[in-house]
Amino acid sequence: MAKMTPRTLSGFMELLPAPQQQMERILQTLRETYSLYGFTPLDTPVIESSEVLLAKGGGETEKQIYRFQKGDADLSLRFDLTVPLAKYVALHYNDLAFPFRRYQIGKVYRGERAQRGRFREFYQADIDIIGDGKLSILNEAEIPSIIYQTFSSLGLKRFCILVNNRKILNGFYAMLGLTEQSGGIMRTVDKLDKIGSEKVAELLTGELGIPAEKAVEILSFIAINGENQQVLSNLEAYRGRDSLFDEGLDELKTVVRHLSDFGVPEENFAVDLTIARGLDYYTGTVYETVLLDYPEIGSVCSGGRYDNLAEYYTDKQLPGVGISIGLTRLFYILGEQKLLNPAMNTAPADVLILPMTDDLSASIQTATSLRASEIRAQVYTEQKKFKQKMSYADKLGIPFVIFLGEDEIAQEKVSLKNMHSGEQELLSLGEAAAKILKKLGEFDAIQPIC
Amino acid sequence: MAKMTPRTLSGFMELLPAPQQQMERILQTLRETYSLYGFTPLDTPVIESSEVLLAKGGGETEKQIYRFQKGDADLSLRFDLTVPLAKYVALHYNDLAFPFRRYQIGKVYRGERAQRGRFREFYQADIDIIGDGKLSILNEAEIPSIIYQTFSSLGLKRFCILVNNRKILNGFYAMLGLTEQSGGIMRTVDKLDKIGSEKVAELLTGELGIPAEKAVEILSFIAINGENQQVLSNLEAYRGRDSLFDEGLDELKTVVRHLSDFGVPEENFAVDLTIARGLDYYTGTVYETVLLDYPEIGSVCSGGRYDNLAEYYTDKQLPGVGISIGLTRLFYILGEQKLLNPAMNTAPADVLILPMTDDLSASIQTATSLRASEIRAQVYTEQKKFKQKMSYADKLGIPFVIFLGEDEIAQEKVSLKNMHSGEQELLSLGEAAAKILKKLGEFDAIQPIC
Repeated sequence: MAKMTPRTLSGFMELLPAPQQQMERILQTLRETYSLYGFTPLDTPVIESSEVLLAKGGGETEKQIYRFQKGDADLSLRFDLTVPLAKYVALHYNDLAFPFRRYQIGKVYRGERAQRGRFREFYQADIDIIGDGKLSILNEAEIPSIIYQTFSSLGLKRFCILVNNRKILNGFYAMLGLTEQSGGIMRTVDKLDKIGSEKVAELLTGELGIPAEKAVEILSFIAINGENQQVLSNLEAYRGRDSLFDEGLDELKTVVRHLSDFGVPEENFAVDLTIARGLDYYTGTVYETVLLDYPEIGSVCSGGRYDNLAEYYTDKQLPGVGISIGLTRLFYILGEQKLLNPAMNTAPADVLILPMTDDLSASIQTATSLRASEIRAQVYTEQKKFKQKMSYADKLGIPFVIFLGEDEIAQEKVSLKNMHSGEQELLSLGEAAAKILKKLGEFDAIQPIC
Repeated sequence: MAKMTPRTLSGFMELLPAPQQQMERILQTLRETYSLYGFTPLDTPVIESSEVLLAKGGGETEKQIYRFQKGDADLSLRFDLTVPLAKYVALHYNDLAFPFRRYQIGKVYRGERAQRGRFREFYQADIDIIGDGKLSILNEAEIPSIIYQTFSSLGLKRFCILVNNRKILNGFYAMLGLTEQSGGIMRTVDKLDKIGSEKVAELLTGELGIPAEKAVEILSFIAINGENQQVLSNLEAYRGRDSLFDEGLDELKTVVRHLSDFGVPEENFAVDLTIARGLDYYTGTVYETVLLDYPEIGSVCSGGRYDNLAEYYTDKQLPGVGISIGLTRLFYILGEQKLLNPAMNTAPADVLILPMTDDLSASIQTATSLRASEIRAQVYTEQKKFKQKMSYADKLGIPFVIFLGEDEIAQEKVSLKNMHSGEQELLSLGEAAAKILKKLGEFDAIQPIC
C-alpha cells in the first residue's frame, strides 16, 4: 500500500512525551494558581459564528483568521479568548454574579506567516475580572500579585511586572493639547529603546509636527524612571493640570500601595511610563511582564483595565481588568533558553513492575495496590529480554523498578531498584511504597522552570 | 451603536460556571486515573493537513468533517483522536519507547445534523497502548480494569463492561463458511434488541440469503449468555472447528482470568457475544460499557484491539488496544439524568473575605495567608450594601465568609461564617483556616456522579 508521509503542520506545536509532561505541569500550576484567587474555569467553543466573533470588525488580525463555510454557516476559529468572553458574559449575563472572575486556558488560532517561535495554534492563559457597571481599583491592584504568584509557582525568579496607567498618559497628552496625536506619539515613543531619544525627537517634530518644546516635555516625561516612590513623586509635579491625569496618578498610587499587602516583593514590580499597550480599549492600569535576563523576548504576560468588555453585544456597561499569557510561545522560549527544569519527573510512571514469573497475578496485584497509594504503576507485560525491559525503564526515565520473581513472591516481598542511585533492596510492599512516595514528594517540590 | 446578538453555535456545549466546575472535576479525575496506569498525556493539533488526516479516505465521517482552505493549504479539523495518534506514532516512532501508553483528552469536530444530545464539538478521552510489532494479550486484560477504575473514581457504581473477542466472531462465521457475509450478519444481529430474533432470522435468510439451518446456528450462538464462566464453557463446545475461534476463546479466557487480579468485581463485567463494534479495524478483544439503569443510552466507553494502527503512514506493524469516552455526550446525559452530584463544591472560591473597614490591607493580608494554605480566597472589593455582598457569596455557593472589621483586626481574629450551617465564630486566622480545610476535605470526598 502507498503510504502518506506523516507530518504536522508548520506553526503547530506537537510535543514529545517528556516535554508534554512539562507542559502539563505548567498548565496544572496555572489552573491551581488562578483558582486560589477565586477565578472559575470557563471553556468556550473553538468555533464561533463569524458575525459574532468579528462583530468588532476590521483590525489587523482579521486577515489571520481561520474562516470558512460549513453548509450555510460562516464560521471562524477564535483568535483570542477575550472576544469569546465578551460574548459569554453578554449571553449569560443573567446567570452570572458580578464581579465575575474567570480563567480560561485554551487554544486560539491565527494564520500568521510561519517563522521560528511563531505559532498558528497556541494556548492563551487568561484571567479577567468583570464588573457590572463599576469595578473597584483594588482589582487592578490585585492583578500584579496574581502574576507574581503565577510565575513564582512556576519557579521563575528574575522577572519584573511593569505597570502604568493609561489615564496618566492620556492626561499628560491632554495637558499638552496633544490628545489627537497621542496614538502617533505613543507609537513613536515606543521605539525609544531601539532608536534612541534624539531620533524619537526628530520623528515627533518632523512626522507628527509637534512643536519642539512639547517634544522636549514628552521626552522628559517618558524619561522619568527609578525607584517606584521616586517615579510617583516625580509624577506629583504634574498634578493639578489635568483631572484625568490626577485620577490616573491616584490609581497608580493605590495599586503600588497595596502591593506589599498582596505579597509582591519590590524587586518584582516597577512603575514604567513607557508601557502603553497597543490596544485601544485599555483605559486604566496596564501591565507587561519581562524576564530580566531575556529582555529581547518582550512581555510574557500583558493586559490591563478596560471600560467596556462587550459593547458590541450589549448596552450593559461591563468594565474589567485582565491579563493573558501566551503559553505556547512562553513554553517555546523556555525550551530555547534551557530554562525548563531537567530535574522534573517527566516519566509516564513512577514505577515499572517487571514480572519474573510466567504467572503475572502477583505483579498485577502489586500494581493495583500501589495505585491505591496514588503511585503511578505500570506492569511490563511484553516478552522481552531482561536488558530490553530495563532499557525501557531507562529510556522513559521511570525512577523505580520492582522485580517480582519466585523468591520475592514466596517471601511476600518485592525487590525495589532506584534507577537513579542503582540501589536495590528487598522490601515489603508497604516499605517499597513509602520509599517511592518519599521520592515523589521530592519531585513535587521541583518547579518546572529553573 | 447597533448590537450583534450574542449566541453560541448549536451543537457546541458552553457551560455556566457551576456545571463547568463539575466538568473540570471529571477531567481532572480522568487525567489522574489514566496517569495511575502509566499513560502519558499527549496534545496534538486540532487542525491537520487534509491529506494526512484523510489518508484512510472515504468513510461515513468524511461528509461531517470541517474542511477548508487557508491560503494554499487544504486543512481539516480532527474528527477523532485515533488518526492523530496514528500520525504521531508514525512521525515520532524513533523517539518513542514501546509499548507506548498515551492518553489524550481533547476536542474533536463532526458537522453532524444538530439534534438534542448530539454535539459538533465534543471532548473525547482516549487511552491507547501501542506495541512495536507485537503486543501482549495482557494489555487487553488490563483495559477493563482501567475502565472500572475510571468510572468508580467518578462515583458511578451501576455499570457493566461488556467484552467480546472479534476472533471468536470471525472464527465462528468461518466455521459456517460465512466469512464473506460476516459484516452483513453482524449488522443484522446488532438489531436483535430492537426487532427480536424472528425478524433477525427473516433478514438473515431473506436479505442475506443465508441457509435457514445456518441462521438457526447464528441465533443460538448469539443467544449464549449468563454468568461469565457459563458463557466461556458454552463456547468450549465450538473448540477445534476453527483455529481463529480457538485463539479468540483463549484470549477471552485470559482476559477474564486476570480481571480479579486487576481488581474488577464480577458484577461490573460481562462476556457478551453480541458486542462487535462497527469499525473494521478491531481484530481482538472489543469493549463496550453500559449504565445498567440507562440501557437506552448505549455504550459510554468503547474500544478494542487492533492490529495495525498506522498502516496509512508506515510499514511498521503497530498493534494496539484502546478505548474512548465521548465525554461531552456523557456529561450531557449525566446532567439530563440528574446524575451530577449537587453536593459537589462548584463555587469559584472557598472563602469570601468581606472587609468592614475602609483600609483593605488586613483583608488582603488575610487572603494572601489563606492562599498559602491552598485555600481559594477572594476579597470582596466592591462598594455594595452588606446584603448584596452576602447574596454574592450565596449565589456563587461560596461555603465560608470571613468578616474583618475594626474589632476583629484589633483582636487579631477573624469572624468566620459557615454559609451552610449559618454558624459564625470569632477565631484566630489559623483556627479559621483549619475549619475551612476540614470542610474542603469533606468536599474532596464527594464524587462528581451520584
